[in-house]
Amino acid sequence: MNGINNEVINLLKRRKSVRVFENKPIDSSIKQEIINAAFEAPSAGAMMLYSILDITDQAIKDKLALLCDNQPFIAKAPLVLIFLADYQRWYDAYCLAGCNPRRPGEGDILLAAADALIAAQNTVVAAEALGVGSCYIGDILENCEAVRELLDLPQFVLPAAMLVFGYPTESQKTRKKPARFEQEYLVSENRYRRLSQEELENMHKLRLVKSGLANKDAIEEIKANCARKYMADFSLEMNRSAAQYLKSFRRDE
Amino acid sequence: MNGINNEVINLLKRRKSVRVFENKPIDSSIKQEIINAAFEAPSAGAMMLYSILDITDQAIKDKLALLCDNQPFIAKAPLVLIFLADYQRWYDAYCLAGCNPRRPGEGDILLAAADALIAAQNTVVAAEALGVGSCYIGDILENCEAVRELLDLPQFVLPAAMLVFGYPTESQKTRKKPARFEQEYLVSENRYRRLSQEELENMHKLRLVKSGLANKDAIEEIKANCARKYMADFSLEMNRSAAQYLKSFRRDE
Repeated sequence: MNGINNEVINLLKRRKSVRVFENKPIDSSIKQEIINAAFEAPSAGAMMLYSILDITDQAIKDKLALLCDNQPFIAKAPLVLIFLADYQRWYDAYCLAGCNPRRPGEGDILLAAADALIAAQNTVVAAEALGVGSCYIGDILENCEAVRELLDLPQFVLPAAMLVFGYPTESQKTRKKPARFEQEYLVSENRYRRLSQEELENMHKLRLVKSGLANKDAIEEIKANCARKYMADFSLEMNRSAAQYLKSFRRDE
Repeated sequence: MNGINNEVINLLKRRKSVRVFENKPIDSSIKQEIINAAFEAPSAGAMMLYSILDITDQAIKDKLALLCDNQPFIAKAPLVLIFLADYQRWYDAYCLAGCNPRRPGEGDILLAAADALIAAQNTVVAAEALGVGSCYIGDILENCEAVRELLDLPQFVLPAAMLVFGYPTESQKTRKKPARFEQEYLVSENRYRRLSQEELENMHKLRLVKSGLANKDAIEEIKANCARKYMADFSLEMNRSAAQYLKSFRRDE
């Protein structure tokens, strides 16, 4: 391992999500490098099954902030990119070429979503290398109808990720990166290993300790997560909305 | 931009998929750095909605090579990782904690797939920084029933990506990276821009030129892609299989 290689690994370790940005625009040359990193990413069959929306209109940023579980920091980001899993472009090309194509299906859109997310993460890494912070907004999956209308999304497109970018404030730079679960609970050899009750509890307990919250109870932590995340309104809406998007790709519809 | 930052951008530009590996194992310390890069990736609500299967059993690699559209190079890779979108672990934890959770839905598994793919791409970048090549195998979405049985996948898990890793042979190192479509066809400002017939044709024409295939016809190229990719058996199977996986997450099932 030479110094350069370690730099990349260290960059990945250092990188954490940034939700408060300095009031400083991102130069167009930096923005171009960030977007270009998406295209350098691997893509299934080199088909580039995604499109990127570059949201520059403040009114649209404001609406997205509301539609994505009302998170005002989204509207303050100097760069907002939406990564769409996109089978519309290829479907249209097949039609144009007279291929009489079948409708895109669930496998197609999952493969396109993979393409979109792989490309998105490349922009995150490139941005970090250029001193620009980033944060994924999973909530872009919510409010299917309103998002479709706002962004003119056609039928065979699904928003796989939204990313906001900007220069981190000092407090964001010094913020501690959230502790991860231990590897032993996330990686298994050859086959999926379903965790026992004891392991699940230990997994949460160990993370609480790492987070300096050793006095917290693991079961209570799981319960709080369930209420705050899984059963929260945004999560129920995300599931309703995602089902709507996926309907376009169902064979039996 | 300093030298280090440019190094990261250059690494992303340089990186291309590798499908022929030297007969050389990956040291455990290198492997550990690659896997650790996954955990350093951002994750929705820090929930780490994925699991990684580290396939070390040659018999399983052989079966995966067959199940993934019969690609023997998969079985020859010294490192094979499967990234599962995993809501089973959290669902089990919620049950254990007495939360009486709803069933995971389509939004949940799409969010988990995003987590898995973001983590996967971090391992690709880390590997490249350590001289290790990689290739995504989208075909892991095929043959749902056989893959589930082979890997003991429970109900609320979906294989989001498979990655094979190894040291590239000389010919792989010197191979040209496939040309990308031009940015103007993939990025639009504020709203989705559906391409006209002329634009679609130009998009393909320009890539053929960049690929040194200016004599090829764009429409014929689209037709060939449709036959080789979209209408191919593997693609039809991927759509059948993906629909099976997604059934577990449908509200109305």
